[in-house]
Amino acid sequence: MDQTARRAHEAYLASAARTPGERAAWLTALAEALRSNADALVGLAVAETNLTEARLRGELRRTAFQLDLFAEELRSGVVLEATIDHADPDWGMGPRPDIRRVNVPLGVIGVFGASNFPFAFSVIGGDSASALAAGCAVLHKIHPGHENLARRTADIVIAALERAGAPKGLFAVIEGREAAVAMVEHPLVKAIGFTGSTAGGRALYDIATSRPEPIPFYGELGSINPVFVLPQAWRRRSAEILNGYAESFTLGMGQFCTKPGVLFVPNDSDDEAIRAGLADTLADVQPGKLLTPALRDSYASALAAVAGVRGVQVLLPGSDEDAPAPTVLAVKSGQVVRTPEVLHREIFGPATLLVRYQSAAELPVLAELMGGQLTATIHGDDDDDTAALVNTLTGKAGRVLFNGWPTGVTVSYAQHHGGPYPATTAASATSVGTGSIGRFMRPVAYQDLPDPALPPSLQEANPWGIARRVNGRFQSNGRR
Amino acid sequence: MDQTARRAHEAYLASAARTPGERAAWLTALAEALRSNADALVGLAVAETNLTEARLRGELRRTAFQLDLFAEELRSGVVLEATIDHADPDWGMGPRPDIRRVNVPLGVIGVFGASNFPFAFSVIGGDSASALAAGCAVLHKIHPGHENLARRTADIVIAALERAGAPKGLFAVIEGREAAVAMVEHPLVKAIGFTGSTAGGRALYDIATSRPEPIPFYGELGSINPVFVLPQAWRRRSAEILNGYAESFTLGMGQFCTKPGVLFVPNDSDDEAIRAGLADTLADVQPGKLLTPALRDSYASALAAVAGVRGVQVLLPGSDEDAPAPTVLAVKSGQVVRTPEVLHREIFGPATLLVRYQSAAELPVLAELMGGQLTATIHGDDDDDTAALVNTLTGKAGRVLFNGWPTGVTVSYAQHHGGPYPATTAASATSVGTGSIGRFMRPVAYQDLPDPALPPSLQEANPWGIARRVNGRFQSNGRR
Repeated sequence: MDQTARRAHEAYLASAARTPGERAAWLTALAEALRSNADALVGLAVAETNLTEARLRGELRRTAFQLDLFAEELRSGVVLEATIDHADPDWGMGPRPDIRRVNVPLGVIGVFGASNFPFAFSVIGGDSASALAAGCAVLHKIHPGHENLARRTADIVIAALERAGAPKGLFAVIEGREAAVAMVEHPLVKAIGFTGSTAGGRALYDIATSRPEPIPFYGELGSINPVFVLPQAWRRRSAEILNGYAESFTLGMGQFCTKPGVLFVPNDSDDEAIRAGLADTLADVQPGKLLTPALRDSYASALAAVAGVRGVQVLLPGSDEDAPAPTVLAVKSGQVVRTPEVLHREIFGPATLLVRYQSAAELPVLAELMGGQLTATIHGDDDDDTAALVNTLTGKAGRVLFNGWPTGVTVSYAQHHGGPYPATTAASATSVGTGSIGRFMRPVAYQDLPDPALPPSLQEANPWGIARRVNGRFQSNGRR
Repeated sequence: MDQTARRAHEAYLASAARTPGERAAWLTALAEALRSNADALVGLAVAETNLTEARLRGELRRTAFQLDLFAEELRSGVVLEATIDHADPDWGMGPRPDIRRVNVPLGVIGVFGASNFPFAFSVIGGDSASALAAGCAVLHKIHPGHENLARRTADIVIAALERAGAPKGLFAVIEGREAAVAMVEHPLVKAIGFTGSTAGGRALYDIATSRPEPIPFYGELGSINPVFVLPQAWRRRSAEILNGYAESFTLGMGQFCTKPGVLFVPNDSDDEAIRAGLADTLADVQPGKLLTPALRDSYASALAAVAGVRGVQVLLPGSDEDAPAPTVLAVKSGQVVRTPEVLHREIFGPATLLVRYQSAAELPVLAELMGGQLTATIHGDDDDDTAALVNTLTGKAGRVLFNGWPTGVTVSYAQHHGGPYPATTAASATSVGTGSIGRFMRPVAYQDLPDPALPPSLQEANPWGIARRVNGRFQSNGRR
């Protein structure tokens, strides 16, 4: 571990001399390598994860696209946030020196592979891609749930980086729990990206923040992702909503961090109507095995814990085979107010909880009973009153959706995949979208440096032609 | 404490409905209140801090300017970082929904007053100003070193906010160590701004990160602020450099977080020459009392600790009265390599250490022996080789200066006042400049919300006329 970290640190130092354009070329080489090895990689992934081939092909496409998008963001210079204040003798607080600021990479980043996204949140997924885009080196901790795929992907990544001319050691993998802890503790590791369970994530967060030199820990832990159906939408479109809900919570066998775990609906449909609304879609779900035996066990215990809360009924019983059929639980809002813990337990797998409310006025109150969320969703019609709920959910979640389902997370400029604790350990950070790159950088200001001594991003002539802010005004580079 | 936090939380919720323009008006009202009460406030400050009136008037001016600048940044909308991605059926990874992101305030922020800046880093200093600009409420822990001034300033702040129409309770003060710990632990407090000692800051950081819901702790702890004088600059301008050094390290009796604590010079001037170079300026220094008796004690013990390291000589002895005369220590670089701890101990007060090096090639190595720094400075001439040192210092410090002195920290768009641990607990954050506002915000993304349900900052028609990024392209609002 120590040797790997030192090599990664050396590679990070060596890469500091490279331009954003060179780094962008490494990323596009990685995207191309993923695409040209798609058949082999998807085959390995199907064998190890029980996920469908279609889903895995889509995920690989997304992962390659993400690398290309980050490369484009690098070329435009946006990630550098170059900011220039010229010297100003008349500045309001007294003469201002020449100050220029740019983002620089943090160093070696430790990244934990996630069980549920063998491409998008694993070896060369979002955390690795954003750390490399930032100019960092990456140590990736392989998730044991898909270790053959991870090793093969790592080989492809390392070979592609080498062919593209990146410094040797810029990307490496480690395996095992002991090495993982050593990575979080290593003095040369300067930040961590993690996607996983609340318990595991918090334990690693505690290690990262207890180091002699504490480091940022970007952990995505757990989320219930509530969906609030407003009365008019429910009255007109309950069948369509139940259909979408059933599709969303069973997608990938319910093993999404954005799976809708709670659906709030008006208390005016009987059990039979709801069962009927869900039945068609659920009948189409092909039960598959969960990702790992350990997840199968924790699914069973989380499901039992929620089902065991007073007042929770089983609306649609699943099965408890290795490939479990979907389960739908139900409870009344009055009970939820008495036992709000029913809203705090994520059931990672194909199960969900329906909460019946008496009046839409209860919804902000019920939302306040929940912890921080990655997403929160409203289904409403024009004659539904959404303002108060949008306001409450803004305070609770990283992403607020309207008349949609949270399981799709597009990679774009405006995306935010994060949220208040316990959804993540760093509410301001996103692990999806171009905003994720900044997590692995820090700003440095230069005062009165001679122009040639400045990094090119800050030189007066703007030799890289990047977007900058000068004396408070944004100057586009034409592209961005 | 609990009641104060609840009132602050209510005020924060109430202020969420206000526009950035209204919030900006609160800030300018605060700036105006400071200016119109300057005589009374500066009088109190002189009595409590032993700092000079001229310095305190300048600091008040800076503090008011900062409020005005943040108000301007609010009106332009830059702090919101509004980002809009329109729906795109042809997006490379598959159809993209409409996604719009904006920064929202975190909630109630706990701010610790600093001993050494009774205006700029105290009641309505940088942390409070940036938290209010972000849309947060502020609980300010009064520093006992200037409690009368702090109480009077707080009265002025609270009255000015009320006159300007801000929600009651948006700003409040607390006193005492017990209340301070309760503030860091309080569930409604969502981030902390701190400026102070490494030991005190780390203890509070540990509390903040050990909470059931951990929160960001923006702590500025300690910094040595090394200055590296390159051979040619030294050969031509040693007298001028020693003069500037003497002025900078004694400014405010050496009680600046950016005081130059170490000066690296070539080993080719004898003690007498250096003493002579410093003497004129130091003779002009009017020794004053340190800020508090506790700081007087910790100054004496830090000075003794560094002076006690093997090989450290006293080049210019100070006095050890209540108002100590400046002390200059000296050591050779060879000794520093053997006992690098001599570079790790901040002496808060009018003392500094001169390190004599054999060759400029040693400087990056010596710099690497140091911890993270707020600032690092190079004095060099055209024929000095600065590239390697700039590169090393970029990895060590938040601000790199050339031919200047670190004790001035301008408030501007490009400023970065931060740095790797132990300079701060959050290397990416700045506590000075417009960049400081973002520390107290987090992004929220809205997916497919109907236009009227969006916050005005994200509505298609851009009713506030703010700067935004749309489909990856920056759109200025004309002002910014």
